[in-house]
Amino acid sequence: MTPITKRIGVLGAGQLGRMMAIAGYPLGQKFGFYAMSADEPSALLGHCFTQADDVDSIARLTEFADVVTYESENTSVEQVREIAKTTPVYPAEKSLFVSQHRGREKGMFDQLEIPCAPYRVINSLAALKSAVDELGLPAVLKTTTEGYDGKGQFVLKQTEQTEQAWQALGGRELILEGFVSFQRELSIVAVRNANNEHVYYPLVQNVHHDGILRYTVAPARDVSDEVQKQAESYMQKLLDELDHVGVLTLELFETLDGLVANEMAPRVHNSGHWTIEGANTCQFENHIRAISGLPLGDTSTRQPIAAMINIIGETGPVEKVLQMPNAHLHLYDKSERAGRKLGHITITAENEDKLYEQIKALNDFLPK
Amino acid sequence: MTPITKRIGVLGAGQLGRMMAIAGYPLGQKFGFYAMSADEPSALLGHCFTQADDVDSIARLTEFADVVTYESENTSVEQVREIAKTTPVYPAEKSLFVSQHRGREKGMFDQLEIPCAPYRVINSLAALKSAVDELGLPAVLKTTTEGYDGKGQFVLKQTEQTEQAWQALGGRELILEGFVSFQRELSIVAVRNANNEHVYYPLVQNVHHDGILRYTVAPARDVSDEVQKQAESYMQKLLDELDHVGVLTLELFETLDGLVANEMAPRVHNSGHWTIEGANTCQFENHIRAISGLPLGDTSTRQPIAAMINIIGETGPVEKVLQMPNAHLHLYDKSERAGRKLGHITITAENEDKLYEQIKALNDFLPK
Repeated sequence: MTPITKRIGVLGAGQLGRMMAIAGYPLGQKFGFYAMSADEPSALLGHCFTQADDVDSIARLTEFADVVTYESENTSVEQVREIAKTTPVYPAEKSLFVSQHRGREKGMFDQLEIPCAPYRVINSLAALKSAVDELGLPAVLKTTTEGYDGKGQFVLKQTEQTEQAWQALGGRELILEGFVSFQRELSIVAVRNANNEHVYYPLVQNVHHDGILRYTVAPARDVSDEVQKQAESYMQKLLDELDHVGVLTLELFETLDGLVANEMAPRVHNSGHWTIEGANTCQFENHIRAISGLPLGDTSTRQPIAAMINIIGETGPVEKVLQMPNAHLHLYDKSERAGRKLGHITITAENEDKLYEQIKALNDFLPK
Repeated sequence: MTPITKRIGVLGAGQLGRMMAIAGYPLGQKFGFYAMSADEPSALLGHCFTQADDVDSIARLTEFADVVTYESENTSVEQVREIAKTTPVYPAEKSLFVSQHRGREKGMFDQLEIPCAPYRVINSLAALKSAVDELGLPAVLKTTTEGYDGKGQFVLKQTEQTEQAWQALGGRELILEGFVSFQRELSIVAVRNANNEHVYYPLVQNVHHDGILRYTVAPARDVSDEVQKQAESYMQKLLDELDHVGVLTLELFETLDGLVANEMAPRVHNSGHWTIEGANTCQFENHIRAISGLPLGDTSTRQPIAAMINIIGETGPVEKVLQMPNAHLHLYDKSERAGRKLGHITITAENEDKLYEQIKALNDFLPK
């Protein structure tokens, strides 16, 4: 054990935990995962505390860990509260509590004067009807909790769809969000440690298809210093208000009136995967540094431009990636299934033209 | 399991296996290690088949593995031969057999017309005396097998030291090597896969202290294209003659008469650690690609110049490294002990001046 070694327990054992471990071992950290099964992406990369009826795997994880973190904003707040009685959990309960509920999240955006879409929390068809009246259409009806990659959403275009939307999603708490007319989707990854250091990665552009992130261009083109500073100031307010320790990601819409917050995630994020090759310190390393009480690393880019392409559903012709200079393959050791994130590819390039040339050469990995 | 997944068994579980795993998981590979104990640097990074009297851990490793590789040129040839009956081992027996014996190694250099120091294999004091007469002094007496980081060597400066040298090292097969007057020590890392692809990293300069590599500058300064091509041609001959699959490293002396081969290692090498951040594809990833039957990756550098500084004996003020942009920390999870390699630091820079400025700022990690 070196002076800086921490034993890190991760709730979850998917690709995010896997990439945390790959980035964290070089710092001398050790990893343990609370896994559903021993087949998960992280299972071979540390101690694997598998959920089983006859063993208290959470107790084994916390016994192992100096500090606990998690992979998902859908982690149980109660579980985190329980663990935190004996072992620090970062990001702490408040970050999780706020970001796992779209209503609380938007409430915090309002409180911190971070622009976001108008919204109403909905608990009945009647409430939905009056919210549709107030916000106008189009609008997006979403569950307040869970739902990711476009799941648990209904786009309301006409008033006649109101009952249909309620039938599709109702029976649980919902939120209706006014439609934001945006030019593109951006996101920013920020990191804070317990010493109140803050670092920010550049804004990136995300392109979705069927609600799933397909590729990211980093940094996003034509972002002025003012816009980058604006995004950073939103992040700083959120990080400080939450007393957040670790990575926090904010998805934003770029509109004619400026940046509008969409949603945040108290974790490393798919739109930050480009940082593995693209930044001096990747988001995973900075997350591990933050939760380990270490100084944060430089977030500068290592080349003019980079792209991250998700490998979705099928592994595809990955040998093409291996043969392409400046391309890097990251597989998560997951079996193929429609819509499932199986891996990603990073491309680094000297300029935008070369980047798009390479993206084009990998169009097998992009939606048709 | 993706189409390219291989289960890789590693004989040994030190830092080299650890870095192979860190580089290999993103390709979708799975790792298992044949370890002395569960405390070794690689033990948490895959299945750990620990040596124990009551279990045949080698059998368990080969049962797990699609392909086996090793960390050390001192791996038993008999063991590799036995494993190869059921599971491919790369690099294969010949590479191991030749490179673990200084006499056989020099014999191959001679056969392939690769310049090396004059030498005599010694089995008696009388043979040593006549070798001293023939080669002249100074000369270096070494054991033919084992010995690394300057261990198992005696520098003979005067004829009167002959008996003392024999007493220090004798009783086993030795080799006397004529002294090479060199300007600097260089090395080259090359990779070959079973499809006969060859790739080469640039020549780097290595600085030793007390026989242990302390730092590497990559690429070595003022190396002409001719000299790089010369080194690559030596590597190509060696790779082909050995039918080598995996990484092969050659240490060289730069003399007024050109490059002189010192010794080779059939494995990833300390002088190639800079490639983790410094090259488009690092030596560890290319080794895993080679032994997995995958295309080799681009070996181009990612920045004008880089350095690798070994962390020896004591972990030292690693927070300094974490606070330095363009510096990357790699700890091996080993306890402190004089002369022990505990980790390394990579520095990348825009130019030589900036590189040396950063090296200077990290002089805590360099010998006084």
